[in-house]
Amino acid sequence: MRIAVDAMGGDYAPAVVVEAVADALRMFPDVDILLVGHLEKLAYYLQKEHLKEGPHLKLVHAEEVVEMGEPSTTSIRAKKHSSITVCATLAAEGKADAVISAGHTGAAVAASKVKMRILKGVDRPAIATFMPAVGGRFILVDAGANTDCTPLNLAQFAIFGEVYAQMFLNIEKPRIGLISVGGEDIKGNELTKEAFKILSNMPINFVGNVEGHDMFFHSADVVVCDGFSGNLVLKTAESIASAIRQWLKESIMKNAIRKTGALLAQQAFADVKAISNFEEYGGAPLLGLNGVCIIGHGASTPKAVRNAIKVANDFAKRGLPSRISTRIAECGIQFAPPTQHSTAAEPQQNSPLTKQL
Amino acid sequence: MRIAVDAMGGDYAPAVVVEAVADALRMFPDVDILLVGHLEKLAYYLQKEHLKEGPHLKLVHAEEVVEMGEPSTTSIRAKKHSSITVCATLAAEGKADAVISAGHTGAAVAASKVKMRILKGVDRPAIATFMPAVGGRFILVDAGANTDCTPLNLAQFAIFGEVYAQMFLNIEKPRIGLISVGGEDIKGNELTKEAFKILSNMPINFVGNVEGHDMFFHSADVVVCDGFSGNLVLKTAESIASAIRQWLKESIMKNAIRKTGALLAQQAFADVKAISNFEEYGGAPLLGLNGVCIIGHGASTPKAVRNAIKVANDFAKRGLPSRISTRIAECGIQFAPPTQHSTAAEPQQNSPLTKQL
Repeated sequence: MRIAVDAMGGDYAPAVVVEAVADALRMFPDVDILLVGHLEKLAYYLQKEHLKEGPHLKLVHAEEVVEMGEPSTTSIRAKKHSSITVCATLAAEGKADAVISAGHTGAAVAASKVKMRILKGVDRPAIATFMPAVGGRFILVDAGANTDCTPLNLAQFAIFGEVYAQMFLNIEKPRIGLISVGGEDIKGNELTKEAFKILSNMPINFVGNVEGHDMFFHSADVVVCDGFSGNLVLKTAESIASAIRQWLKESIMKNAIRKTGALLAQQAFADVKAISNFEEYGGAPLLGLNGVCIIGHGASTPKAVRNAIKVANDFAKRGLPSRISTRIAECGIQFAPPTQHSTAAEPQQNSPLTKQL
Repeated sequence: MRIAVDAMGGDYAPAVVVEAVADALRMFPDVDILLVGHLEKLAYYLQKEHLKEGPHLKLVHAEEVVEMGEPSTTSIRAKKHSSITVCATLAAEGKADAVISAGHTGAAVAASKVKMRILKGVDRPAIATFMPAVGGRFILVDAGANTDCTPLNLAQFAIFGEVYAQMFLNIEKPRIGLISVGGEDIKGNELTKEAFKILSNMPINFVGNVEGHDMFFHSADVVVCDGFSGNLVLKTAESIASAIRQWLKESIMKNAIRKTGALLAQQAFADVKAISNFEEYGGAPLLGLNGVCIIGHGASTPKAVRNAIKVANDFAKRGLPSRISTRIAECGIQFAPPTQHSTAAEPQQNSPLTKQL
């Protein structure tokens, strides 16, 4: 599998990305990497990691980078030679089997939509991410790709999550919940009330509305929401976990007995940190695309980027996109007009961006 | 101060409420309580707590209760003799200085709006709640009263939070942030992007968009959002805190050394639990009303209800509603048409509901 990695994406790029690529090449012998970035800016880090082009590593030049503060859509139009656009173009032209970026999420979503295309019948792709819960894990979708959604979007996200859970959690009929502010069907906002009606009529294992407590105590395998809410849940969970570690540390440092106790129980703290350290989870797939795009956490560590490469490799090997198309059709929730969508990842012409390959 | 307490509101009502009232009467000698509920159903609990009518306690009968699963608005129309409606009517008629309910939030909001009326220039009241952060506390508003909001609503919520922070946190110019999915001004959904523009032009200390990490590391004193998002933040924070305690416990129980360590450090765990145990925070005011209404957590403990009584007493003594009206006018963000709103808490006629007083 050939994975196009955006070397310039992430808060600590390109250093962290190059380090992760070096690790991945050692650890995953079946992975070929196309490292995409500004070659002059990468030279120092490549040398540091003793990385050179070879059978498993190709370097692809990209003149520009989308900076974190830029609007997603204009960034794609204004920066046609950005590293994320080059990555998406490689995938669209069949030169890469998957794309990874830990950079500007909006730009990665926009570039993937434009270059790799959206699946037939799908309105918008969404980010699906694993979240920890007491008693298991759940998939949160959309975790931040779409800030404003329609009820149909939410219904489609349910299918993304269903297929993801079937293929990656091995759950035949995943329990699908809808994020709301009350367990009762009558509660929610205009969006969730309409989505509830559609979900109730789909041939899926819909378990109704879920609130915070339901989610984190594993009463659903897939939790569906708009990307604004999903991102809020993700960020709040990350932040409160981090705040709790800080409060605990401050209280422990107050006296010697507590310090001793904490030392004896340190493995328990490490266990919990590992569960609640979302940054280490690696990448989250952008589902609904005609191809594989993995979005990394902005603050990704080398381990997280390496995990994202592994996830991308797993995804590229399986036929997840076509399974999503089938289920969307089975559930009768196709988005019209279908003329705007391509039906298969037909290799496009060689663009000047990627002609070096 | 006379506080009308909804005896039937909350997951463990009326037992917990009656216990809290008994405690409050002992602890706060300046509080008079009007305990509102079905007198037959209360009798057992009153006897258990040795509570009888007296100079500081009046019992008020209410025939009905709004159950948790009922729609808010129809519940108010269909159950005109519910305990929450009787509480709000007592306040509207000047027989109570404040109202408390830990029951159906939507019903409490609806009853307060109808009976106590909304402040002049205000479109909708909102729930403001204290949240813990590393380095201080912040006020989250709206924490769940309005699932669908307009940009003007969010601008008004900012004023509710500003006045609350000024009067209860003693901060002269509270830093006001807007919940969004990105620190950059360009990020957010349609609602927050419009609200951002209004907030930027108001004479307040607006610090821009805030995300999870900003919130829980205290980069704003007041955090503004729609009630759906606010409730999601509140529930997610509560739940992940509870999940972390569970994970920690499971890991600690795995061996004796960890158990010993946890025992030595137990005060640190207790400290953190106290910070992150939202249920104990007591009541959250519904701001924007022409009067005082305190909403309790559904799962309120006796301590939480007692705290809510204390908060209600504090609120009733201060002139918070009039200060909100003034600031709304100063900021030029009045809601039209004003004809639907009353200007002052004019005592209304005695209704059959409350004629017993």
